[in-house]
Amino acid sequence: MIKEVIAIIATLLVTTSYIPQIIKGYRTKSLKDLSTSFLVIVGIGVLLWILYGIFNSDFTFIIANAVILVFVITLILMKFYYRK
Amino acid sequence: MIKEVIAIIATLLVTTSYIPQIIKGYRTKSLKDLSTSFLVIVGIGVLLWILYGIFNSDFTFIIANAVILVFVITLILMKFYYRK
Repeated sequence: MIKEVIAIIATLLVTTSYIPQIIKGYRTKSLKDLSTSFLVIVGIGVLLWILYGIFNSDFTFIIANAVILVFVITLILMKFYYRK
Repeated sequence: MIKEVIAIIATLLVTTSYIPQIIKGYRTKSLKDLSTSFLVIVGIGVLLWILYGIFNSDFTFIIANAVILVFVITLILMKFYYRK
């Protein structure tokens, strides 16, 4: 029970952590200090975790990682957009 | 087998993803575009995953998350240091 609660809170935290980064980037219109390699590597990693979730039919895991992937892609696109 | 390989590669990617961000920050001496909230929330999330790993006696999981925690703390400290 405690284990499950820890897992749920950890998943929510790690997944939503990207929101303040997106908000900050949107406000300052600058993401130049953010490493593109960092974002791309996290993106590929998360894509593999989605694949792993599909193999395990673990839908919570798939959704959490899909949300992270959307956030990471958003940050990559914002970084390119604000580069101009 | 394929599942395990996917999990290993995903873990390696997500864990090491922070290295290019640390290198970039060290080179540019600037991490102002990086959200502190993002780093702190990821840090707390990863700390909970370590706790979860301890409950499950999953040492690979503990180590991977501990490495991420070290990288995240490094980035928070670098951000504060370069702020001056």
